[in-house]
Amino acid sequence: MTTQSRETEVFSYNIDVLDDTCPSRRVLDLLANKWTVLVIYALSSGTKRNGELQRLVLGITQKMLTQTLRELECNGIVARTVYPVVPPMVEYNLTAMGQTLIEPLKTLCNWAMQHIPEVEASRARFADNKGVN
Amino acid sequence: MTTQSRETEVFSYNIDVLDDTCPSRRVLDLLANKWTVLVIYALSSGTKRNGELQRLVLGITQKMLTQTLRELECNGIVARTVYPVVPPMVEYNLTAMGQTLIEPLKTLCNWAMQHIPEVEASRARFADNKGVN
Repeated sequence: MTTQSRETEVFSYNIDVLDDTCPSRRVLDLLANKWTVLVIYALSSGTKRNGELQRLVLGITQKMLTQTLRELECNGIVARTVYPVVPPMVEYNLTAMGQTLIEPLKTLCNWAMQHIPEVEASRARFADNKGVN
Repeated sequence: MTTQSRETEVFSYNIDVLDDTCPSRRVLDLLANKWTVLVIYALSSGTKRNGELQRLVLGITQKMLTQTLRELECNGIVARTVYPVVPPMVEYNLTAMGQTLIEPLKTLCNWAMQHIPEVEASRARFADNKGVN
């Protein structure tokens, strides 16, 4: 890493998400994703099954839900429990580490919800100024 | 919106990011993106030109940087100033609204940087358990 010589006022770490070779960038890749954020939110209220998650996170496809859950499981944020019944029952819940993400992601979602009017007004102005292009 | 009948313990709003028809989802679409997060981070230390941003945000292509800056400008998070010199000089900085994102995004990036060891350990365990598949 070359953080010493680069402009990194935003961090007081040697670790630097702005550096694409830093492992923190891979963690950010995972977190800074709409479906990751929404699935963690849906799980913040407790254990869920696949079908419940698909009903909660409107707009997610089954393929994207499967992929997101697998990524979150791989990264230690979600735990997957399979119960040996017929047909098999699978449940998902946040791990202890995953639970520490609830607060940061809630802050982000709250920002999105609180700034709708300002963001929409800006979009309207931008469209007026720039035309179709 | 059908928030009344849905499980939305995580929010005390009628507005609901889990609902894909809610305008907050469009705002989250913008924020929950790796390049958005990193460009806002890079701008958190002050006004930057295109070349400076490309040097700071390692791994971003010119095309992706242009697209990200345009999206952020459209949504009122970044201001673009063109100085009438030859060749034209263009500068980017966070708007007042954009500056309110520094703290939430710093929290997210800090989480990524603080949890590298745990996340990497989980990935190694997952790879051991699951094999190549």
